[in-house]
Amino acid sequence: METTNIKRLRDFVTAFASLLDQNPKEPEILEKGSELLRELIKTDDWLPNEFAQPHPQYYQQYLLHSDSLERFSVVSFVWGPGQTTPIHNHTVWGLVGVLRGAEFAQNYQEQEGHLLKSGNVETLTQGRVEPVSPTVGDLHKVSNAFDDQVSISIHVYGANIGAVNRSVFYEDGSSKPFISGYSNKVIPNIWDRSVELRTN
Amino acid sequence: METTNIKRLRDFVTAFASLLDQNPKEPEILEKGSELLRELIKTDDWLPNEFAQPHPQYYQQYLLHSDSLERFSVVSFVWGPGQTTPIHNHTVWGLVGVLRGAEFAQNYQEQEGHLLKSGNVETLTQGRVEPVSPTVGDLHKVSNAFDDQVSISIHVYGANIGAVNRSVFYEDGSSKPFISGYSNKVIPNIWDRSVELRTN
Ligand SMILES: [Fe+3]
Ligand SMILES: [Fe+3]
Ligand SMILES: [Mg+2]
Repeated sequence: METTNIKRLRDFVTAFASLLDQNPKEPEILEKGSELLRELIKTDDWLPNEFAQPHPQYYQQYLLHSDSLERFSVVSFVWGPGQTTPIHNHTVWGLVGVLRGAEFAQNYQEQEGHLLKSGNVETLTQGRVEPVSPTVGDLHKVSNAFDDQVSISIHVYGANIGAVNRSVFYEDGSSKPFISGYSNKVIPNIWDRSVELRTN
Repeated sequence: METTNIKRLRDFVTAFASLLDQNPKEPEILEKGSELLRELIKTDDWLPNEFAQPHPQYYQQYLLHSDSLERFSVVSFVWGPGQTTPIHNHTVWGLVGVLRGAEFAQNYQEQEGHLLKSGNVETLTQGRVEPVSPTVGDLHKVSNAFDDQVSISIHVYGANIGAVNRSVFYEDGSSKPFISGYSNKVIPNIWDRSVELRTN
């Protein structure tokens, strides 16, 4: 693996865990968590290449960290050119922060068994952070804004998101169960602080 | 990576985190934690090969899990034939459980600036769990009991052990600072429960 500034990810995990350790309510998590995520994605020098690889057919979801009690997880989403998610929900709070490239996000709401677009397509450029949750709006579809380059966003969720029972939705309002899993068998070791410690 | 029963490691991490979440005192951590570790090492079908590889010269320390706030860590120690640690301390509680092979453990105590052997060499066979800590005895030297095969033990510590400021000691009582770090750049993703969940 190439040398990356993995300390940024470690500091983010530590800060997010400290925030959640105070048992804040969702609005505070979304507000303070967004600040932390904005800081993380401001500089694109820390994500190991192994967790930035697109797949020719499918968008990839690389787990970067899960809390011991699955209180939160951090995931790298990698979209190849033109790739898109289905319309889906989360059932827990989440934050989406664009690290590389740009994404289109379309929100939806359910009304009398039908799905309606909620607002216009938003273009999320590098550095933007957007929340999702059953409270602030939980249904969306996210796409790579580019058809000729990879886009990557870093997501944080209030659960081990790959193991959450969720749903994908179709325009006619029908849905089916969805458990995303993860694309990776190994995650980065962000915890080796020995080089830094020996230097200090 | 080969298929392994990684669920055992995930269940161990979850159970250990739940134990620590109740803020138990050290004796309870050592007692209940030993039970959990004995259960984990009873069956040798879950450690991915990548984290069971010896090095020709050095014993290896593969991080398997670190808690978000570094409250505990789980590490796979892999000894090649005849390999040994120096005499060292931990400064935090720890549990050593032998998963594969066998190990020799010699405890030490410091007395008037000298190191004295404390008890005889113990042979830790597969399935044995031993505690360390400043309270119950923090100085020891651990060796592979075999000169012709690999031995592996699974360790749990009350910190991110690779980043702890520790010491190695010499028989004359002198010591030098020691920060172990880790041998691995990636750790196992123990959090993908999607296959199990879809089957249920
Ligand atoms: Fe989403
Ligand atoms: Fe030790
Ligand atoms: Mg918005």
